[in-house]
Amino acid sequence: MEMLEHGSVTTPDGFTTGVATCGLKESGRPDLMLLHSERDCTVAGMFTRNQVVGAPVTLNRETLAANSERVRAIATNSGIANACTGAPGLQNARRMQSLVATALRCRPEQVLVLSTGVIGVQLPMAKISAGLTAAAADRQPDGGPAAARAIMTTDTRPKHLAVRFELPDGNVTIGGIAKGSGMIHPNMATMLAFLTTDAVVPAKSLRALLKSAVDKSFNRISIDGDTSTSDTVLLLANGVSGLSCSRGAARAAFSAALTHLATGLAHLVVRDGEGVTKFVSIRVSGARTKADAHRVANTIATSPLVKTAFAGSDPNWGRIIAAAGRAGVRFELQRAALWISASEHETLQLVARGTPCDYQESDAAQICAGSDLNVHLDLGCGGAETTVWTGDLTREYVSINADYRT
Amino acid sequence: MEMLEHGSVTTPDGFTTGVATCGLKESGRPDLMLLHSERDCTVAGMFTRNQVVGAPVTLNRETLAANSERVRAIATNSGIANACTGAPGLQNARRMQSLVATALRCRPEQVLVLSTGVIGVQLPMAKISAGLTAAAADRQPDGGPAAARAIMTTDTRPKHLAVRFELPDGNVTIGGIAKGSGMIHPNMATMLAFLTTDAVVPAKSLRALLKSAVDKSFNRISIDGDTSTSDTVLLLANGVSGLSCSRGAARAAFSAALTHLATGLAHLVVRDGEGVTKFVSIRVSGARTKADAHRVANTIATSPLVKTAFAGSDPNWGRIIAAAGRAGVRFELQRAALWISASEHETLQLVARGTPCDYQESDAAQICAGSDLNVHLDLGCGGAETTVWTGDLTREYVSINADYRT
Repeated sequence: MEMLEHGSVTTPDGFTTGVATCGLKESGRPDLMLLHSERDCTVAGMFTRNQVVGAPVTLNRETLAANSERVRAIATNSGIANACTGAPGLQNARRMQSLVATALRCRPEQVLVLSTGVIGVQLPMAKISAGLTAAAADRQPDGGPAAARAIMTTDTRPKHLAVRFELPDGNVTIGGIAKGSGMIHPNMATMLAFLTTDAVVPAKSLRALLKSAVDKSFNRISIDGDTSTSDTVLLLANGVSGLSCSRGAARAAFSAALTHLATGLAHLVVRDGEGVTKFVSIRVSGARTKADAHRVANTIATSPLVKTAFAGSDPNWGRIIAAAGRAGVRFELQRAALWISASEHETLQLVARGTPCDYQESDAAQICAGSDLNVHLDLGCGGAETTVWTGDLTREYVSINADYRT
Repeated sequence: MEMLEHGSVTTPDGFTTGVATCGLKESGRPDLMLLHSERDCTVAGMFTRNQVVGAPVTLNRETLAANSERVRAIATNSGIANACTGAPGLQNARRMQSLVATALRCRPEQVLVLSTGVIGVQLPMAKISAGLTAAAADRQPDGGPAAARAIMTTDTRPKHLAVRFELPDGNVTIGGIAKGSGMIHPNMATMLAFLTTDAVVPAKSLRALLKSAVDKSFNRISIDGDTSTSDTVLLLANGVSGLSCSRGAARAAFSAALTHLATGLAHLVVRDGEGVTKFVSIRVSGARTKADAHRVANTIATSPLVKTAFAGSDPNWGRIIAAAGRAGVRFELQRAALWISASEHETLQLVARGTPCDYQESDAAQICAGSDLNVHLDLGCGGAETTVWTGDLTREYVSINADYRT
């Protein structure tokens, strides 16, 4: 398996992207993206679990329920989320779908549409219409990085990757672009990821493969614990390689590559999280169940006290232990152990049997001062474990999210 | 019912407090407090639900299980939490209990001990011993405010109140002191509250009355969602008034007064929360169940996106709606409504039937600019409601919690 750092959704054959600037962003940057497949694609999608969803999420769920075998395009605007927009918002999403179908000469049910940006504002459909025509004309077989840029909101850099692996009869490529937590008043963080592959995978298998990959990647990252009304991950398979990946060793290879790609994109989202200065891996082992491990890891990863300690490069194990303690998972402190490490340092044990070890504060502080930190908490009561990824909570995060109006 | 703003734990007759400085705090401020009752007290206690608890919590649970009818004293040190200290920590807590018993000429099981401050550090027992002797000698019948000061960590001001109500045969007084979320490296927020009354209430009734009051006050506030290893609320009733409050109208009056006092102290804790510049009441109505209402209100109250918007005086209803949506409670957006108000302004509706109302941004911003803000979200799907209180999330919070080492 080879990771292609400059790869994107257009790295697999048969996909093109075009972008346009239709005037939705104050910055005047590109705000519309069209991803097109020359062949019908099987598709799998995962959406936010928020009870409140944007109109495009409602429409895409409907579209995927009716057609998960012949999808041709994804259209996304950034700048306006089309959420909390009532019936007119849903009409606009449908209109956007029709406009894309006309521009690309396919049927509306072959088009998925997404919007990210301000909440409670209707899409200016004349601008969207002009933008879609322009984006369709702009399509390029190497347009992926530009597409990654066009879906950004307050992301500071585009996020795109691809991965390639060998099968006995040839290579399969999977590419992706993603946008992360951003906020422009009064909108909210939206995580979008679009993945493409030239593999042959029936929709049902694709759904299972996507769920497995997302559970190990996008569902294990947290910037601030707030999930948005629009979070969406889509995977399109156009079968251009002619190589089937739905069974046996090929499926296993595809699954590993897809998980690797999704994890890579998820890490890019964390690293570009609002105000994030540190990438922190939190591993929880020795839990009774996987669910227990997740609960403890997520509680640590979303604790403001823990995350401000990370921001201060403070090896504050007390806050980590206390966050674990309030996760609603039973464990005995006297069996718990905690280690920290950074890539360039050896692992340092801070806690053994629930009490502090005899370590040098300066050693711990040096490990925490780096841009990458690994925390490992062992609960000592079982064999289950997990790892989640998060960033630190900085003054910059507060500034970004408190001051956008002023 | 009369609220006594300058009241405290020594306002009810028969209670004295003494303080001492035994050198646990770098600041050199008083760090030891002794509360003594001239008569045996019935007692009720509520403790942190964190799985990880300080040694004093373990010891107090044991003491209360053995003796909830004849308690005489509460001793508290600030500066060291005696948490994550293993078997020696528990021995030190027991030793502290014995030292208090000797100083006050009672039995160890009549003494409750608490510690708040740094985690993972053993108590210096020689200093504690000298301090307890000094605090016992310092006891005053009006020492409550000084006691409130001696239990502070990074609180910026002492928190004390009392309330008095009339019964046909005389007055009953309930007093209290509290400390809130504070943090001195590497310790954590600890919420302590000690309440005293001269009423006659059997321990069993006292427990029910305390639970009801705490559920409506201390259990409805959140600074950052992090619960500590030492959070404790204790209520001592010495019966000096001779007035029974365990039944009928007297019990109802006592319950109302206790809830009023606890709520007042809880609000003081929020107002003095780390970095807090705004006191925010979050009312959620129209929920199917009380539990649903709590879940939605608490998710809003702990959402970093919502709390940074408060910090920026930003009427960002989208973040409030989105936080409600991820609380794990089913509701339909098209039935939801949202209002904001401040005491000096009229109520302004921002959202009706899930979509934004036609209001002036400047009116909304003006309401949010005040130091007190009320948010009211109606889910439109039932008759249950609740109110919780929180503060904003500011750069100052991050500074306090990130920079203590540096």
